[in-house]
Amino acid sequence: MLQTSAPDARLASDHSDLTTPSADGRRVVIVGGGFGGLACARAMGRAALDVVMIDRRNHNLFQPLLYQVATAALSPADIAEPIRKSLGKCRNVRVLMAEVVGVDTTAKRVLLADGQTVAYDCLVLATGSKYNYFGHDEWQEAAPGLKTIREARQIRQRLLSAFERAEATSDPEEARALLTSVVIGGGPTGVEMAGAISELGRFMVGRDFRNIRPEDLRVLLVEAGPRILAAFPEELTDYAADYLRKMGVDILLGQRVTDVGPGRIAINGAEMAVGAIIWGAGVKPSAAARWLGLSGDGRVPVDSRLAVEGFQDIYALGDTALALGADGKPYPALAQVAKQQGHYLGKALNKRILDGAVAAPFIFRNRGNTAVIGRNAAIFDFGSWRLKGRLAWLLWAIVHVFLLISFEKRLLVSIQWIWRYITRQRGARIIDEDPHL
Amino acid sequence: MLQTSAPDARLASDHSDLTTPSADGRRVVIVGGGFGGLACARAMGRAALDVVMIDRRNHNLFQPLLYQVATAALSPADIAEPIRKSLGKCRNVRVLMAEVVGVDTTAKRVLLADGQTVAYDCLVLATGSKYNYFGHDEWQEAAPGLKTIREARQIRQRLLSAFERAEATSDPEEARALLTSVVIGGGPTGVEMAGAISELGRFMVGRDFRNIRPEDLRVLLVEAGPRILAAFPEELTDYAADYLRKMGVDILLGQRVTDVGPGRIAINGAEMAVGAIIWGAGVKPSAAARWLGLSGDGRVPVDSRLAVEGFQDIYALGDTALALGADGKPYPALAQVAKQQGHYLGKALNKRILDGAVAAPFIFRNRGNTAVIGRNAAIFDFGSWRLKGRLAWLLWAIVHVFLLISFEKRLLVSIQWIWRYITRQRGARIIDEDPHL
Repeated sequence: MLQTSAPDARLASDHSDLTTPSADGRRVVIVGGGFGGLACARAMGRAALDVVMIDRRNHNLFQPLLYQVATAALSPADIAEPIRKSLGKCRNVRVLMAEVVGVDTTAKRVLLADGQTVAYDCLVLATGSKYNYFGHDEWQEAAPGLKTIREARQIRQRLLSAFERAEATSDPEEARALLTSVVIGGGPTGVEMAGAISELGRFMVGRDFRNIRPEDLRVLLVEAGPRILAAFPEELTDYAADYLRKMGVDILLGQRVTDVGPGRIAINGAEMAVGAIIWGAGVKPSAAARWLGLSGDGRVPVDSRLAVEGFQDIYALGDTALALGADGKPYPALAQVAKQQGHYLGKALNKRILDGAVAAPFIFRNRGNTAVIGRNAAIFDFGSWRLKGRLAWLLWAIVHVFLLISFEKRLLVSIQWIWRYITRQRGARIIDEDPHL
Repeated sequence: MLQTSAPDARLASDHSDLTTPSADGRRVVIVGGGFGGLACARAMGRAALDVVMIDRRNHNLFQPLLYQVATAALSPADIAEPIRKSLGKCRNVRVLMAEVVGVDTTAKRVLLADGQTVAYDCLVLATGSKYNYFGHDEWQEAAPGLKTIREARQIRQRLLSAFERAEATSDPEEARALLTSVVIGGGPTGVEMAGAISELGRFMVGRDFRNIRPEDLRVLLVEAGPRILAAFPEELTDYAADYLRKMGVDILLGQRVTDVGPGRIAINGAEMAVGAIIWGAGVKPSAAARWLGLSGDGRVPVDSRLAVEGFQDIYALGDTALALGADGKPYPALAQVAKQQGHYLGKALNKRILDGAVAAPFIFRNRGNTAVIGRNAAIFDFGSWRLKGRLAWLLWAIVHVFLLISFEKRLLVSIQWIWRYITRQRGARIIDEDPHL
């Protein structure tokens, strides 16, 4: 009899203890399983802490390569790893797939969308950022950004469908519009997308299509500021702009998008019919500041140890946090910042909770800032020295393969890149039969 | 001036000639880019024929491995190849992504959903089959089959989400329901799915989950007939059934599904709450018979040269066609039949149209019938001899890698299989952020 009732007993031992405060003051709740949150959880893995990771997705997404999913070069699974799998061996870490909607800082509880709560002794906010549509959130459907797998699939679907429709139509005006892709925002994501669309289109159209020609393709890169890649030195920006122009990308500087709709865009008020539209114009932090009752939806101010100012036992990192570097400027919203902060914070919390000691302040080590433009072309800015061209591109590829989270993904991505380099083929040119994309 | 107007001239040279009958009587229109249609187009590639391939998808899907996408082992792009790419080097073949809604056999025209028409001299119907819900098409949303990428993603999403929800809930009844997956239909697809779900669940739950145990998992395989894998000899069926039971699959024989809804199923009238439901119970041909005004939605009767009986210049093959073998029985709805018929028909049409000669009747060569049950377990029926166990499994894997359409996919799938064999990990455990799945 005991045997048959055992499963019940076990099934009843669930996450229900999470709703009550911990007995030993050792429960650390991390909201967000991105680069920062994951690094933080791993740094606390196998310590005598009760760590709870909450994310509304089941996977960590390697966003730097998401543009390659959008342009049919990689599959979503190549750059996504289940959070549960990444933390599977850390037996003191529990993973909860749930959406956080608020924080009760008095009762020290995280509020979930399903009405449940999770009590914390220590809270880490690592919720990342989302695209900033500057007050025009209604543009998002027509001009998706590059933050989720769904958006990447949406962009891939629209790019490939536009080519198919241009091949089939007998109206040259319509074909010209469909073959015009627009990328909004001249930051690294925008530059990478513009270059990748141009490469995808030129090869694919030349080889596999009959009625449209590579010369009929247009890629517009729209930037409101005076130059693209504003975070990089001008020397590198000039190189990138020249290279993009050679690839057939039209760079529109100092121009503003004034309206966006399905298959149409207005730039400085002038409307035109186009194919796919991609948004990459700046990010804003997600809702963490609002949860704490802070005004605006800016980043959450933290001190030199990443503790949120004015709150007890709450920390923030990555794109969520406004942390100032030694030069008094905020750290940029980059993966490497989030990752280093996460690792630092995990170690610091181990020390604080288990030993009662205070860690030294966080110091960011710049590993270099990079953007890839196309085949054989990338730029690197290491602060003291700079790199561009084929060598930078090779370095970019090696670094990004090693940053991938598992050996299997590294192998799969390497093979696909080598294959693509040789054949110029894109392996993931699928238009899903999905009526909702 | 000439240079700037050239693109227009070229863009005007589109598919509009397709609406008018061909001048030389050499236009072959193939509807459907599956195994059969693609083999047919390739056999006519580089001949002096004007071939038009019409499919509503942009890709050919390697359906025998779709169950591995549904169980998070492979990515959609690993088993899907753009039709346009497969036929890219056949410069006499044009690919049109469009939905066919009918055929005007008098005017010799194919009717498209967008109102356009395509004139043919010779028509090949290769539209395949779809799942048969036996009059309950309303069950499809709750119990998707395995015919499209979208359905595979839908099943993957539901399986993975059910495990996540079971891990989070504090209600043991709910957890038990969520951990019960139901596969309907004991044919090869049903057996493959049941085995794969069991393997996925057991490993994943044991390693990455905290509150649920591998022993809590249930997989039900529901078959209305007296045994599973009815197309195979009983000896092989018995082996498969034993192996499945060892893997923890409950096989329900002679039982009928009487109702299906979201998260619930009734078997022989007894309703139960469950997690994911997968439909694999028999197929029926798609709409080709209806286009020809034939009664019912059965297969289209063809003669020994695959010509549709009672029509001029119309052929059918694969799941669409009712072709009788030497034994007087219809050929089964298998990929290898479609592929051989497609190749045969392409060659036969070359001969007929270009040389005015009549080809010998089609003869099917049985390459063996196979089903895979799990790690190290598969069955093969070659008619005269049979194979089961580890060797059959190895043969199954080798054959399926070689049947994949491109070298890149072969390499990627091989690596993932070897990796999975060693680690038991599933690389594609992604829950998309897709509200419509």
